[in-house]
Amino acid sequence: MQHIKRLFDIHPWKIATTSISHEDHRLQESLTSIGNGYMGMRGNYEEGYSGDTHQGTYIAGVWFPDKTRVGWWKNGYPEYFGKVINAVNFIAVDIEINGEKVDLAKMEPKDFYLELDMQTGVLTRRYTVEINGVLSTLEFTRFLSLATKELSVQKINVKTDKPANIKLTSKLDGNVHNLDANYDEQFWIEKSVGNTPFPYITSETLPNNFGVEQFSVTAMAKTTTSPEVNSITSTEKLACKEVFVFENETEVTLFKNTVIITSRDVAEENHVAAAEEILLPSVEKGFEALLAEQIDEWAKRWEMADVTISGDDSAQQGIRFNLFQLFATYYGEDERLNIGPKGFTGEKYGGATYWDTEAYAVPLYLALTDTSVTRNLLKYRHNQLPQAQHNARQQGLKGALYPMVTFTGVECHNEWEITFEEIHRNGAIPYAIYNYTNYTGDTSYVENEGLEVLVEVARFWACRVHFSKRAGKYMIHGVTGPNEYENNINNNWYTNTIASWVLRYTSEMLEKFPREDLGVTADEVKKWQDIVDNMYYPKDEELGVFVQHDTFLDKDLMSVSQLDPSNLPLNQNWSWDKILRSCFIKQADVLQGIYFFGNEYTIEEKKKNFDFYEPMTVHESSLSPSIHAILAAELGMEEKAVEMYERTARLDLDNYNNDTDDGLHITSMTGSWLAIVQGFAQMKTWNETLSFAPFKPKTWNSYAFHINYRGRLLAIEVTDKVTVTLKQGAALEIELYGEKVLVENSFCVKTK
Amino acid sequence: MQHIKRLFDIHPWKIATTSISHEDHRLQESLTSIGNGYMGMRGNYEEGYSGDTHQGTYIAGVWFPDKTRVGWWKNGYPEYFGKVINAVNFIAVDIEINGEKVDLAKMEPKDFYLELDMQTGVLTRRYTVEINGVLSTLEFTRFLSLATKELSVQKINVKTDKPANIKLTSKLDGNVHNLDANYDEQFWIEKSVGNTPFPYITSETLPNNFGVEQFSVTAMAKTTTSPEVNSITSTEKLACKEVFVFENETEVTLFKNTVIITSRDVAEENHVAAAEEILLPSVEKGFEALLAEQIDEWAKRWEMADVTISGDDSAQQGIRFNLFQLFATYYGEDERLNIGPKGFTGEKYGGATYWDTEAYAVPLYLALTDTSVTRNLLKYRHNQLPQAQHNARQQGLKGALYPMVTFTGVECHNEWEITFEEIHRNGAIPYAIYNYTNYTGDTSYVENEGLEVLVEVARFWACRVHFSKRAGKYMIHGVTGPNEYENNINNNWYTNTIASWVLRYTSEMLEKFPREDLGVTADEVKKWQDIVDNMYYPKDEELGVFVQHDTFLDKDLMSVSQLDPSNLPLNQNWSWDKILRSCFIKQADVLQGIYFFGNEYTIEEKKKNFDFYEPMTVHESSLSPSIHAILAAELGMEEKAVEMYERTARLDLDNYNNDTDDGLHITSMTGSWLAIVQGFAQMKTWNETLSFAPFKPKTWNSYAFHINYRGRLLAIEVTDKVTVTLKQGAALEIELYGEKVLVENSFCVKTK
Repeated sequence: MQHIKRLFDIHPWKIATTSISHEDHRLQESLTSIGNGYMGMRGNYEEGYSGDTHQGTYIAGVWFPDKTRVGWWKNGYPEYFGKVINAVNFIAVDIEINGEKVDLAKMEPKDFYLELDMQTGVLTRRYTVEINGVLSTLEFTRFLSLATKELSVQKINVKTDKPANIKLTSKLDGNVHNLDANYDEQFWIEKSVGNTPFPYITSETLPNNFGVEQFSVTAMAKTTTSPEVNSITSTEKLACKEVFVFENETEVTLFKNTVIITSRDVAEENHVAAAEEILLPSVEKGFEALLAEQIDEWAKRWEMADVTISGDDSAQQGIRFNLFQLFATYYGEDERLNIGPKGFTGEKYGGATYWDTEAYAVPLYLALTDTSVTRNLLKYRHNQLPQAQHNARQQGLKGALYPMVTFTGVECHNEWEITFEEIHRNGAIPYAIYNYTNYTGDTSYVENEGLEVLVEVARFWACRVHFSKRAGKYMIHGVTGPNEYENNINNNWYTNTIASWVLRYTSEMLEKFPREDLGVTADEVKKWQDIVDNMYYPKDEELGVFVQHDTFLDKDLMSVSQLDPSNLPLNQNWSWDKILRSCFIKQADVLQGIYFFGNEYTIEEKKKNFDFYEPMTVHESSLSPSIHAILAAELGMEEKAVEMYERTARLDLDNYNNDTDDGLHITSMTGSWLAIVQGFAQMKTWNETLSFAPFKPKTWNSYAFHINYRGRLLAIEVTDKVTVTLKQGAALEIELYGEKVLVENSFCVKTK
Repeated sequence: MQHIKRLFDIHPWKIATTSISHEDHRLQESLTSIGNGYMGMRGNYEEGYSGDTHQGTYIAGVWFPDKTRVGWWKNGYPEYFGKVINAVNFIAVDIEINGEKVDLAKMEPKDFYLELDMQTGVLTRRYTVEINGVLSTLEFTRFLSLATKELSVQKINVKTDKPANIKLTSKLDGNVHNLDANYDEQFWIEKSVGNTPFPYITSETLPNNFGVEQFSVTAMAKTTTSPEVNSITSTEKLACKEVFVFENETEVTLFKNTVIITSRDVAEENHVAAAEEILLPSVEKGFEALLAEQIDEWAKRWEMADVTISGDDSAQQGIRFNLFQLFATYYGEDERLNIGPKGFTGEKYGGATYWDTEAYAVPLYLALTDTSVTRNLLKYRHNQLPQAQHNARQQGLKGALYPMVTFTGVECHNEWEITFEEIHRNGAIPYAIYNYTNYTGDTSYVENEGLEVLVEVARFWACRVHFSKRAGKYMIHGVTGPNEYENNINNNWYTNTIASWVLRYTSEMLEKFPREDLGVTADEVKKWQDIVDNMYYPKDEELGVFVQHDTFLDKDLMSVSQLDPSNLPLNQNWSWDKILRSCFIKQADVLQGIYFFGNEYTIEEKKKNFDFYEPMTVHESSLSPSIHAILAAELGMEEKAVEMYERTARLDLDNYNNDTDDGLHITSMTGSWLAIVQGFAQMKTWNETLSFAPFKPKTWNSYAFHINYRGRLLAIEVTDKVTVTLKQGAALEIELYGEKVLVENSFCVKTK
């Protein structure tokens, strides 16, 4: 059905291959991306590659407002499209052997080996090439330090089978362009380039007319070699170089430590001093010690978060790859940051903040990291409340409207059907507050920052609905639901449902934690209740389904299996209007609502809706399969659940959607974890009770995962038995297959 | 309610004022635009104006594909937005008196007078300014020749009250920018500048990446003066100048004849020779003779087309202004041209071809000009049939889809809700074929080119509908109707109606004029019939109205009068999504269909729909009031009809929509004529019978107009009697108030 392309071998901990893929070089680069939450980069080759490549180095929170114009401007259209930008290439080291530059696009390597070790975050690559009769073996090692976020560490080793002249040119190159740029503009200008105390360049984003902050970024590198030789440094526009020449050598090793400082943290005039302050101790520490730190830091993360699957290394590799890339993108250290859909692996989607965070990432971070990480994700939105109020005003509405795409809180995407209409995001953000509060039991957030957000979002919804006199119901017209393959629809069941829930939950929280300072009047609360009581939810009694929107059932309904497969993926084969008119669903829409509010619907309702919508779903959003896996698991459709798991777990590794060359689907990587934990293990937390009802996929011997829940660390292992072990914290009452059990040490039942 | 701004005095034949309007300078420029079908320009000042101005000279068929990008590109989005471009400024003549440049933005003129004479198309302006103690009276006269389309004629007279040094600099200036340019690019590059035999410049449109033709334009000027003096010519980038200096003179006159040649007609290497060939005889002929020709040519047009209104000079001025500007824009000489919404008066809307032509302009040109003019408008579309087929393919559909906005036939507007969805234009184009055939009785067009267009358009519609199994009906989802204040709606009554009509009319014509070469199969015709028989038309039995689209009645329905007037116009005060959700209608939608197919609906149906929709209509499209005027007249709502007439007749003169500073609403100018002839006089041509049922607005003494109908020229005068006079051609049976009468010479009945 779907196209599958698997470049890397199956291995539980490694992304490794002995093949160089010239045809799929960008895909290989995407899959070997590394990051440390502060910065990251695609798997570009240090020595350069003159073939098809997408060079990309990204620094968290550094972005540019790209100019964009549609045909006719309308009131309220954002003026720019914010995007993550490719920043200084600091890993580059040109290698010449006997005067010839090494370039794998032009040479056929022997013994090629490329490996991303997910256990440690270290990327290595080695190969042998023959250059003018000299056999040279090159080995590259690099990682972005978790211990020192500003630090990149590289080691390059060159061995030859006979004495040769080896020239290594270590570069900092700011002459970079965005692949995603509307008009091929270069987004960077030089601020300064120098070599005291070490080679460095400072570049700044172009000025803009939109009042958006300009960012400056300094990269400073200290390069050492063994044997030691004198180097020559030189500078040119937006770049500097340090050249090391070795004559008649058979082995040379280069160590390059680079520090990146940005104006987000340090005033530009202090960049050089700040970089030096971090760089010097790192050089003193040395490669091996830095590597040991790195291994240690990743080990800590894995200890809290690892998921093991026995009997299916492909599935094992998939879940680890996803967790690795998620943590490489975001680990909660900086509350000004969020989780871009491509992380540090590409530029598509602008790379800003989406509702993906609240809908898909929050549940994972709640369970796998310290509570403070999720809290930082919530604070991010609270900090942007004034901008969300601004967005609502732009639409002539009250309250706060969180943006669909943003860096600052101000909407920065300019398609009206998304910006103005995909307002269901304003439900996911309150949902995350609920989720945090319900999961952690910590009410301090909702009482304080949380209610400030909730009340303003509730005010938005109360203003955005209208009362249809004909139907005697409140309605929400002109929206785009989670299924972006339709838009400007009326009464999207999901949107109406989550809007009404926001009003209900806000009222409940306000009653529980009164906040007179927010000025909510009795009339306001009464109005909210009236909307909750009289909201219209499209439903078809005959089919027994919630209807995606008012006229969905008038479409030419058919299942994806009735389509000739040459039509898939639709977004690459059909014109936009044809997609919009079709019944085909990009991602869970009604089912997304049933997932969020799973305790409010019966199994029969869930089944009818799943059976009706799933066959029409093309899953062309990477966010889709996981929700289907979870529901299928709950409905006992094991085969479907496993199929959907595989699709989410190996979406990038198998390039399911044929678009991973652009970068990884970072935010949807949570989906594989959700599918195992909320799907196969049926973990739920309704009513502040942790419950499980696991099944084990037939093809797996066992699976196991950890859960951080209210001060406990629990280990859950599912074989033909389910074993729940309390690894840290006080005894806890949970539900297992509907039975209450007290977990004091370890508790075990037969799998049902 | 609406904002009214009237800059010019009421006069039956003139647009004249004694006030210079610095604040509304652009509006004044728009209203004093002139054109001759080949080229035209806004009322810019010859001597320059350093205040707020919109300099604009436009040459028919010369355009540029401007770059444009929305957030995320989708399959089928056009890559560029084609727009008319501001071309070489050839009227400029700087005037210095005793060393000081005349500039009305900096000087206070006395006896200012500005006049556009609609009878002759001559623009004059005169004023007196005091410069360093010298009183100087300047008079400017210019026109674009109807007799020689490439020719512009200017006369400038300067008189001083004492001898003064007068310096006149005649310029050709290609350094011009578009006001409508997405990124302020200059669209022109210089090809050559010279002064042999006379000063000229040749500029060419920028190269583009879209495969769009580049145009080159040559302007050559011969300037003479009285008294004669030697001049000095000089050139600079994209410009040339000719300087005349007069010492101690009290009167100087300058004559400037300019010829414009384009690569549309003459290969660039022959431009200079071609220009000279036209320029020389014009100079020999001299200003007065050229002026006499001009007066004569306009007189011929007025003879066939004039509408007189006695007792209301404001209304009289309105209709004449509209007819004048229409004929200045298009008089059918060149079948490669069409009627842009701003003509030669501005750049808004890209200036290309819209469905306005077929829906609003064809009926007027049919009645007021030779049949060949309308036939050229039809041929324009036939010539673009291959491009229309291309457009349909872009959407994955069969047949032909005429573009919403175009220069070449290829869609060149990139908002999907317009490009992909406002497909009702594909009904108006067949309707114009019907209209031409039914009006003229000439079947030769439909038999030949016409059926080729009809069959391909029918194939489009047959492919674009879908069958709703639930409803057992054919439906059309995902469209934008004539009311662009909604989009992506389902089952727009107007679109469904006209689509079905196309299938019906095409079948009828195919039966009458078989065309085996078109390969229409019996199955195809059967399918068309099935769609006609089973098309879904939304209707509300209780209200007795056709419903604009599926969920229109669920909206928060209210009348415009319930809105605080500060909200109007909505498009300047509301965000786009708010407009889309509202019930407010930009222009006739259901009523447009009732107008087109007026013989298929009862008076009661018309009335119910008019009463329902009109109060919700904001008429923010200039195409709206005329249709309402016509229907109101038919329904006997005289006051509403007159109100709507006034709005269409004086839309620009009174700046009703507060946007005439951008240029005139050329295509909607037909509306005032339609309102009088099809409205007040109730002229209809159903079933090949010409009929009238006139009423006379109370405030008018009388009105009269001419009709060119099947080889006759008829004069109709409406006072308290209706007099129909046959001025040319054979006797004709017509219907007057439903009674058949034979018009041989003149026929007269009492007005009902």
